[in-house]
Amino acid sequence: MDNAKNLLLLFERPQEPVFLPKGDKKKKVINAPTEFLNEKHKTYITTVVSRLGESNETVPVPKISIPPMDEFLVLKRDEAFSLFIDKHRALAGKLINLFLSVKTVGHLMAVGVYAREHLNPQLFSYAFAVALRHRPDTKDLPIPSVVHSFPDKFVENRVIGRAREEVTIVPEENRTPIEIPKDFTASDLDEEHRLHYFREDIGVNLHHWYWHQVYPGRGPRQVIDKDRRGELFFYMHQQIIARYNCERLANSLKRVARLTEWSQPIKEAYFPKLDRLISKRSYAGRVANAKLQNLARTVDDSFVDVQQLEHWRDTILDAINKGVVVDRNNREVPLDEFGGIDILGNIIEATELSINPQLYGNLHNQGHNMISLIHDPDHRHLEEPGVMGDVATAMRDPIFYRWHAFIDSILQKFKATLPRYTEAQLNYPGIEVTGVEISTENAPANTLNTFWQKSDVNIANGLDFQKTGDIFVRVTHLQHQLFTYQITVDNASGRARSGTCRIFLAPKQDERGNPWQFQEQRTMFMELDKFKVDLTPGSNRITRMSTQSSVTIPFERTYRDVAKRPTDDAGIAEWNFCGCGWPQNMLVPRGKQEGMPMELFVMISNYDDDRVDVEFNGRCDDAYSFCGLKDRLYPDRRSMGYPFDRQARDGVKTLQEFLTPNMRVTNVNVKFTNRVFMRQPK
Amino acid sequence: MDNAKNLLLLFERPQEPVFLPKGDKKKKVINAPTEFLNEKHKTYITTVVSRLGESNETVPVPKISIPPMDEFLVLKRDEAFSLFIDKHRALAGKLINLFLSVKTVGHLMAVGVYAREHLNPQLFSYAFAVALRHRPDTKDLPIPSVVHSFPDKFVENRVIGRAREEVTIVPEENRTPIEIPKDFTASDLDEEHRLHYFREDIGVNLHHWYWHQVYPGRGPRQVIDKDRRGELFFYMHQQIIARYNCERLANSLKRVARLTEWSQPIKEAYFPKLDRLISKRSYAGRVANAKLQNLARTVDDSFVDVQQLEHWRDTILDAINKGVVVDRNNREVPLDEFGGIDILGNIIEATELSINPQLYGNLHNQGHNMISLIHDPDHRHLEEPGVMGDVATAMRDPIFYRWHAFIDSILQKFKATLPRYTEAQLNYPGIEVTGVEISTENAPANTLNTFWQKSDVNIANGLDFQKTGDIFVRVTHLQHQLFTYQITVDNASGRARSGTCRIFLAPKQDERGNPWQFQEQRTMFMELDKFKVDLTPGSNRITRMSTQSSVTIPFERTYRDVAKRPTDDAGIAEWNFCGCGWPQNMLVPRGKQEGMPMELFVMISNYDDDRVDVEFNGRCDDAYSFCGLKDRLYPDRRSMGYPFDRQARDGVKTLQEFLTPNMRVTNVNVKFTNRVFMRQPK
Repeated sequence: MDNAKNLLLLFERPQEPVFLPKGDKKKKVINAPTEFLNEKHKTYITTVVSRLGESNETVPVPKISIPPMDEFLVLKRDEAFSLFIDKHRALAGKLINLFLSVKTVGHLMAVGVYAREHLNPQLFSYAFAVALRHRPDTKDLPIPSVVHSFPDKFVENRVIGRAREEVTIVPEENRTPIEIPKDFTASDLDEEHRLHYFREDIGVNLHHWYWHQVYPGRGPRQVIDKDRRGELFFYMHQQIIARYNCERLANSLKRVARLTEWSQPIKEAYFPKLDRLISKRSYAGRVANAKLQNLARTVDDSFVDVQQLEHWRDTILDAINKGVVVDRNNREVPLDEFGGIDILGNIIEATELSINPQLYGNLHNQGHNMISLIHDPDHRHLEEPGVMGDVATAMRDPIFYRWHAFIDSILQKFKATLPRYTEAQLNYPGIEVTGVEISTENAPANTLNTFWQKSDVNIANGLDFQKTGDIFVRVTHLQHQLFTYQITVDNASGRARSGTCRIFLAPKQDERGNPWQFQEQRTMFMELDKFKVDLTPGSNRITRMSTQSSVTIPFERTYRDVAKRPTDDAGIAEWNFCGCGWPQNMLVPRGKQEGMPMELFVMISNYDDDRVDVEFNGRCDDAYSFCGLKDRLYPDRRSMGYPFDRQARDGVKTLQEFLTPNMRVTNVNVKFTNRVFMRQPK
Repeated sequence: MDNAKNLLLLFERPQEPVFLPKGDKKKKVINAPTEFLNEKHKTYITTVVSRLGESNETVPVPKISIPPMDEFLVLKRDEAFSLFIDKHRALAGKLINLFLSVKTVGHLMAVGVYAREHLNPQLFSYAFAVALRHRPDTKDLPIPSVVHSFPDKFVENRVIGRAREEVTIVPEENRTPIEIPKDFTASDLDEEHRLHYFREDIGVNLHHWYWHQVYPGRGPRQVIDKDRRGELFFYMHQQIIARYNCERLANSLKRVARLTEWSQPIKEAYFPKLDRLISKRSYAGRVANAKLQNLARTVDDSFVDVQQLEHWRDTILDAINKGVVVDRNNREVPLDEFGGIDILGNIIEATELSINPQLYGNLHNQGHNMISLIHDPDHRHLEEPGVMGDVATAMRDPIFYRWHAFIDSILQKFKATLPRYTEAQLNYPGIEVTGVEISTENAPANTLNTFWQKSDVNIANGLDFQKTGDIFVRVTHLQHQLFTYQITVDNASGRARSGTCRIFLAPKQDERGNPWQFQEQRTMFMELDKFKVDLTPGSNRITRMSTQSSVTIPFERTYRDVAKRPTDDAGIAEWNFCGCGWPQNMLVPRGKQEGMPMELFVMISNYDDDRVDVEFNGRCDDAYSFCGLKDRLYPDRRSMGYPFDRQARDGVKTLQEFLTPNMRVTNVNVKFTNRVFMRQPK
């Protein structure tokens, strides 16, 4: 394990030559064979290394024969890497495979050193991280957060510049965190800017990046073919839209408009103010009223017309309407009640698992590309993609939600074709939820309090070619007061039963201030938690803390500092390295200063129908609702989003009418205080 | 003078605290009183300075009382400064005044140190340089080229990033110049890109920056009220358009289309790939088909509608048609043959010399602003101007030429109202040009050879917060083979005469390959040289070298290296510090590989009508055609552009018909070799 840990040094300062000091206090020097270095670095390695001093620990690198890597050089070192571009995804897939095929950890160090020296730093970091996550001998390594190696994807360039200044001229003991202004991308003249705290949240974007790292679209079968990954693509993004829409209502905006008029100007503009540290090119802004253009970019083999997107969309809708897809051998495969959504998720995203890529194409990815390259669709201006072309940055742009609302609407069309849940499928005979309450310290019952908080992130490992020492940036993000659910359940069945407690939250009113029709409110429900409960006969009292949510990762995992990670194996397991998961600080929607009425929905479903034969082992288990369990089955047999994933049974017009005795709804008030509070102790 | 030279240290590394080492080998430390430092720097000055070592020379700074500078703080340190923005120009004007009013060089050091610590670095550098140029006690200081302090305005960000990498990890003796790719802003899919070598030439952009520094639009009267500056604004820009059009013809493009349809999409896009090192924001690209928008930016007091531009244009055209402008007191002032163009130049630019800013507005500057802010006209996205908002970068953008072709067309309308030159006004009785030939070594007579050349520029002083030592970037630029004019003149007047030899060049054919009508070719003539000749009776042979051009500054002044400048006063005078002037390497238009037929026009005008009572003194005299003489009268009494500045007399349809005996035209072939040649010895 100790040897394996040295692999993590390769994530530090991704642009620097591999032989510059790494690790805590920069005490480790990777003793790379000169043959492994890139030509440019070879010329001065002796001069540099002789200056490094004596006190360093040397990390040995075996001089083995390196597998050929020439094919990866088509992506130049200073080009922008994008998982949405087929060519890049294919390269990443092959490189992951290569890293997986290396026999030992020692050899992997050698191959990693060589790859880092020669390949595009983003391609290397991505593929190396995915490979480490999936190799039996490295899968428990605490891979550093991408925000540390690539802060440019999360932190505005001006702040990075100040950090560069600070580390150069201010002695470490005098440094103070550099504040990221809350409103750096736009002003309130831009109404979409009201949502910046959601779109630009570091944790939200980290989640999205990690999700796509845990669920890559291309690569070795063992990496991509995960339990229900197509369905999870659908559900995780559906939940993001639900959450975004809730934030929009809280900010007096209508729900997001699906991006469906592809020949019309897109009115939302976005200027990310992020600069790529690798390619030294900024993430291009998108001006107001830009129109989608046919892509014809030789540089990344991106050739796709708007008409092609339309055709893929129509072909997929046809399949949904017929209830049948056609596989690569022209065999019909029915879109059934449970597996259908998984097939469609993989088709639409699209991943290598797509049942027929030739027929159903690459709708979601190419939409990302077309939007991200709207300013230079044929590469005549040598421009790189905007934020929509990078999974680490895409969620910053308002258009992300318009595009995904469209993608979601296709999948909802499929869901509308499914049999509706009968009362029997919803009810849990004998089980009644008799009380639901939220308790928040010093607040009236059923109140959720939100506010601003500031947290620090160390970006020192992302500042290549600078002096060492910690340097923090200070982020202002949404936060909420810790709370607990108090749920009482009556078990009249006369024997011990088990159930799954499912907790959702949705706004009580629509944009007009009217109560919802169930059909609309259904898609607004945000999952807050899901957990198994054991019910003794009679009355049961369930207490659950907000921090236990199955949706979120612990706060410290977003704002963790790699330098301070535990070093013993037990500590590492506890630290729990998996970055996928909704950030804890964004669990509760912002609400309104005057309070925003919401409905908290709690359901106890019958565990016999939920149960999956899988063990929780404490490894990346926290956020399984959105991220699954690492290398195991998705731990809930129901369709994701159950019971809200389908149209309601006949006659149900309102949430109240939808309820069976094992469900209960409580009015909750989400109150936002527009002030910054100090970091809240956990 | 030695003390004064220390003032130049304030131009180095504009973002660093003033007390960090400066000068050659970073041997000088400015001993700034702690009170002068900005708050942030005060906290660690002792720690930093104690680390600087002993071997430094200390530059004393007197602890005087500093004039109040609070009013300049409205421009934040990290905001982009633009001379086109009224508010910024007004600030710069006041700051220049403040620097001019400081009594002694010693006090100026103190005021400069304080200003540098507290004010926006670009505002400071601009105003300080203008003030140094205009103070009697500093006007001969060799002010470092802006490309050294602000390389970000001239060098693409990717190259600056590589330079940062190089200075950090490569020992100085192993460093190699970093190549700027020839095609970094676009590919040949963009037909405008064919002209990139002209638009992105470092010398061309430096010239434009210096011109606006020598001729600021706002400031103390003694700085702005220079002889014929309004006319020079017209002529210098007219010549740029003539040169640009010649390059367009050489590249199979039509002459540039005036930007006149202000409600229509602008088809030319431009993505500069430059990032501001001060504000850490990139110069925004302009997408294809953007439309001018009304500006309403509180941040820089920019409020101007497209309608307002139309109104200013129409008011100016009215004045031209009436031949009369109205001054601030509603008095009519005629636009006469010689002074009219000067009045109009100042009105249109517009400068503080405008005869009536309320009436005639600010057409040219606001056009620059409106274009540069086209992506964020109301500042909702907190964006900074594109390249058109900065005199150091504006010429990179194809739209610059469309805008200035429009501006030029207004001034040409005025020129069309003037009396045409009679044969008597053109002729020089008794003087006949009998022969004109261009000699280029190893080439047929009348051949001009052009090719690519690479030159290095040291940008170390622009890399704030980095290690020291030289670091060069390598630029590929147009160059031509040295040549000489051989002119024979017959003086039949029987006595010694003087004349002004005026040399112009124009393409021989229009876009269609047809010979020009004089009326069109007239505006295509590029001035190559202008100089006084003394003619003895009988035949005279004039030999003039291309490097002596009155249009250009010496090649070394563009690609000069401040670190290598002479240190003795005589050396400094010889070095000749004035940066204004067309770059020598761009004297000859590119031409075509198969050869491009041009017409070389030589005229000897009567010196009695040209003469101005002014002495040449070797200070910034080289490029007087475009830049005038420093602090002296423009040394040619004729209208600028004579004899091509007006419509031709009746009956003249072709250049041949235009000629009087004191003029002669020779066919010249401009042959371009599409290869890089080594730097040519002068």
